[in-house]
Amino acid sequence: MNEDTGHVIDAFEVRTPTGTDDPLSSEEIERYRAEINRLDAIIIDAARRRAEVSRAVGRTRMGSGGTRLVHTREVQIINQFRDELGAEGPAIASALLRMGRGRLG
Amino acid sequence: MNEDTGHVIDAFEVRTPTGTDDPLSSEEIERYRAEINRLDAIIIDAARRRAEVSRAVGRTRMGSGGTRLVHTREVQIINQFRDELGAEGPAIASALLRMGRGRLG
Repeated sequence: MNEDTGHVIDAFEVRTPTGTDDPLSSEEIERYRAEINRLDAIIIDAARRRAEVSRAVGRTRMGSGGTRLVHTREVQIINQFRDELGAEGPAIASALLRMGRGRLG
Repeated sequence: MNEDTGHVIDAFEVRTPTGTDDPLSSEEIERYRAEINRLDAIIIDAARRRAEVSRAVGRTRMGSGGTRLVHTREVQIINQFRDELGAEGPAIASALLRMGRGRLG
């Protein structure tokens, strides 16, 4: 967990039922759904900002050629997301990388 | 931009070159790459936490049947990511939703 952002991401302790005998209460379910919405908003904001920053770098790179280093960096990012998030990580990383290549707006 | 998390996501103003005559400096590129790494860490932390919360809800749901509401909610989430992030949004949302269905760990 990132030190600067951990307090924002990790707002409260999550109770995970181990079976059907300790289900979440209606209040807990409502709270957890709200937490998912909050996390989605964080992911969306960070993804949009990431695309903006990545495009700014790309604009400069286009003016000076060279794609090899970028390819290496993209592979590293995909591997990082796989290492940290498992099998779904590369799908998220690939979408983020495509967003960073795309047109502005 | 989410009010609670905006200050964490939006750490500094991004300068986007409009052409090749105003490229980012080496310092700017380095700073922007570090910013991308920081945003990736936020996305990874939020995605991992999202999966944990979503699985906790799923464990309770399994004990009481019913999938129709969940399907509606998943469609809403995919649409939200498309609305906010464009064409790549659904790929990110789908990966997050699959993570939330998966096994723990």
